[in-house]
Amino acid sequence: MSKRVAVIGAGPSGLAQLRAFQSAAEKGAPIPEVVCFEKQSNWGGLWNYSWRTGVDEYGEPVHGSMYRYLWSNGPKEGLEFADYSFEEHFGKQIASYPPRGVLFDYIEGRVLKADVRKWIRFSSVIRWVSFDPQSGLFTLTIHDMVKDHVYQEEFDHVIVASGHFWSPNVPEYPGFDKFHGRILHAHDFRDAREFAGQNVLVVGASYSAEDIGSQCWKYGAASITSCYRSAPMGFDWPENWEEKQGLAHVEGKTAYFRDGSSKDIDAIILCTGYRHVFPFLPDDLRLKTANRLATADLYKGVAYVHNPKLFYLGMQDQWFTFNMFDAQAWFVRDVILGRIDLPDDTQSMMADVAAREAAEEASDDVKYAITYQGDYIKELIAETDYPSFDVDGACEAFFEWKAHKKKDIMGFRNNSYRSVITGTMAPVHHTPWKDALDDSMQAYLQN
Amino acid sequence: MSKRVAVIGAGPSGLAQLRAFQSAAEKGAPIPEVVCFEKQSNWGGLWNYSWRTGVDEYGEPVHGSMYRYLWSNGPKEGLEFADYSFEEHFGKQIASYPPRGVLFDYIEGRVLKADVRKWIRFSSVIRWVSFDPQSGLFTLTIHDMVKDHVYQEEFDHVIVASGHFWSPNVPEYPGFDKFHGRILHAHDFRDAREFAGQNVLVVGASYSAEDIGSQCWKYGAASITSCYRSAPMGFDWPENWEEKQGLAHVEGKTAYFRDGSSKDIDAIILCTGYRHVFPFLPDDLRLKTANRLATADLYKGVAYVHNPKLFYLGMQDQWFTFNMFDAQAWFVRDVILGRIDLPDDTQSMMADVAAREAAEEASDDVKYAITYQGDYIKELIAETDYPSFDVDGACEAFFEWKAHKKKDIMGFRNNSYRSVITGTMAPVHHTPWKDALDDSMQAYLQN
Repeated sequence: MSKRVAVIGAGPSGLAQLRAFQSAAEKGAPIPEVVCFEKQSNWGGLWNYSWRTGVDEYGEPVHGSMYRYLWSNGPKEGLEFADYSFEEHFGKQIASYPPRGVLFDYIEGRVLKADVRKWIRFSSVIRWVSFDPQSGLFTLTIHDMVKDHVYQEEFDHVIVASGHFWSPNVPEYPGFDKFHGRILHAHDFRDAREFAGQNVLVVGASYSAEDIGSQCWKYGAASITSCYRSAPMGFDWPENWEEKQGLAHVEGKTAYFRDGSSKDIDAIILCTGYRHVFPFLPDDLRLKTANRLATADLYKGVAYVHNPKLFYLGMQDQWFTFNMFDAQAWFVRDVILGRIDLPDDTQSMMADVAAREAAEEASDDVKYAITYQGDYIKELIAETDYPSFDVDGACEAFFEWKAHKKKDIMGFRNNSYRSVITGTMAPVHHTPWKDALDDSMQAYLQN
Repeated sequence: MSKRVAVIGAGPSGLAQLRAFQSAAEKGAPIPEVVCFEKQSNWGGLWNYSWRTGVDEYGEPVHGSMYRYLWSNGPKEGLEFADYSFEEHFGKQIASYPPRGVLFDYIEGRVLKADVRKWIRFSSVIRWVSFDPQSGLFTLTIHDMVKDHVYQEEFDHVIVASGHFWSPNVPEYPGFDKFHGRILHAHDFRDAREFAGQNVLVVGASYSAEDIGSQCWKYGAASITSCYRSAPMGFDWPENWEEKQGLAHVEGKTAYFRDGSSKDIDAIILCTGYRHVFPFLPDDLRLKTANRLATADLYKGVAYVHNPKLFYLGMQDQWFTFNMFDAQAWFVRDVILGRIDLPDDTQSMMADVAAREAAEEASDDVKYAITYQGDYIKELIAETDYPSFDVDGACEAFFEWKAHKKKDIMGFRNNSYRSVITGTMAPVHHTPWKDALDDSMQAYLQN
């Protein structure tokens, strides 16, 4: 097979793509030459922790939104690889909400076993991608940051796996230019201890707000104030955590809210989400979508309808993560291997997108959304040889997780769930999350 | 004249270029079409203050290294425009170390008068530049961030005026990945009040270290510790400022130095300089130089020897700033207008670069370096119609400034100097710098 495939990014979705191709090769199929370009000096994407904020050692925007002491905010039973269980990796079942280091080790274990690191060019920034309709080839302009050398290569297919939780959405509120404390986006949050003893304002009401506020609380912030635009998170917060209506403006060190109330604060953490950003793509190849379950312009959620030689992985908003990337990567692989045919007209592909959008919009219910994404995974898996697994069981784990959070927002991580891959029950972790200050792998695995 | 010229950046050097062309047009010369592309939504470059750090509202690295309460760290008499004096702008002579807002207003005043804003496309990021030896034209790939639209245009000349104090050089020290306090580069420093009551470690011994440490001291830090690699700054620091040998490593919240001493600290500010970064240029057009007075590969400090249709402004390390950019911009303009011929062989241009390097390296003396850059300005000015001015007098202002700093590092800004453009003496400022907490233009101009 003389085709060349470029994978942009070696995070969870890019690595899923490498594993998908390696899996086919292992079974004897001819596969294309796969070259993966990774901006960072190591793999793992967001799971590759860096203390750096702003720009990296080469002046490129820091990819990492990861902070210290992060534990998974959903049960690991909802993201387990169907072809590489937690028990295979750790030699035993482990508790359900692993810290970052444990999940990084797990992600790495599968790709070390698959021996695909040799396909990756690290510290390689994609400067530009263009498509030539005559030759049907993509030209990638690559900056090797170590050698400070820019070069070009041609590919038959490009798979964009660069993520969409790395380029922060940073709104401005009146008074920010004169605020006397610190303002940062969740993307630049690193160590909760920096905020010990401080009055912290968290702007936002989604996962980052919930988790970063909780981290600051756990590591000794004097108080947490969170504020929402449309609806409160509504958990049963600890005594020194107050939920307020939207931020109106700041003055000096005081924050004013829409209900007219105010609060003196030391730091503002903007948990205001991320943007789909692809600075290396021209108009005709660049995905423009909201952060939703049915992305715009992607047939089956992966093939770019305006140029189906181009694919995107993991561009959906996510309940499922690693296992969804797998389902997508196996599907994309099989399209490239010629095992799956795409519709040969744009109209049919657009109809697929429209149908997914309509189905997503049919209900606002959270259970519906989780099931919707579970069904999407089932749909993709049915078309490839990715190991089938009990997706409904994983949905159940998410439903339980939701209930556990509702019951005790600072204690939900003390629960455990049953693996849908190996069928075994996770042990209860040895220490309640709020008391477990040591997030090392060694400490976590002592069950 | 049918030529098209692209200017990349609308900071002090890019604006000098626009003014240079407008000045020629004003005198009746035909000028090319000049298009200036500016990444930010306003002009002024580093003098355009933003509270943002990391990436901007579009996900592009924040250009600004500017912090609140910054006052010029050199006398304004060393940077005054020869064609637009402080007295012309403010209607009177003003004190010698203006705060940011005052200098921004001054920079803006000249280009408002010249009416060149219409030549600038704001929020426009250059994604890529290529040169076609066949046509002799450059193709620029431009991302209009407001419309989220990428397009290409061709130009006869490109003038890179994107600066080299915006992409931080960020070294890593052992223990940074586990430090319990905040780590930031000077580039991300915004409001000194964030560090009130804190023990601050400043890494570095150059202008950023000196000025950011002083700001933190002025606005109430508990203590300043600065550390140097090669030599101490050696000023007569206030009691709660200690200079130490190089940083060795950090552990928990403790910094350890090469002399074996240690200090408990809350924040580390890396004043470790900037890098020449041009993410939009291929190998054959990209300047690679150290931060020095005689840059590599630039004939007369501006024309790129490997492709002299390409120019760089302000890429030198700087004593002189605005007036040096002017000298360069007028020179570049006259090359493009055909009034000045470049050597027609690379060898002669390389010889010019080598001679400048040798001359710079002939002495380590600071006075020598200031005079060296003054002589460079004189050399360029002599070849164009830029108003001649007393460069030696400006050098004298720098010499005095050096002595004033040596005498009183927290009080040197209380001195005043004579303008070499209008010949008038600046007033002594009404309030000593260390006591002047209001840095507004209104407060500053009350002399």
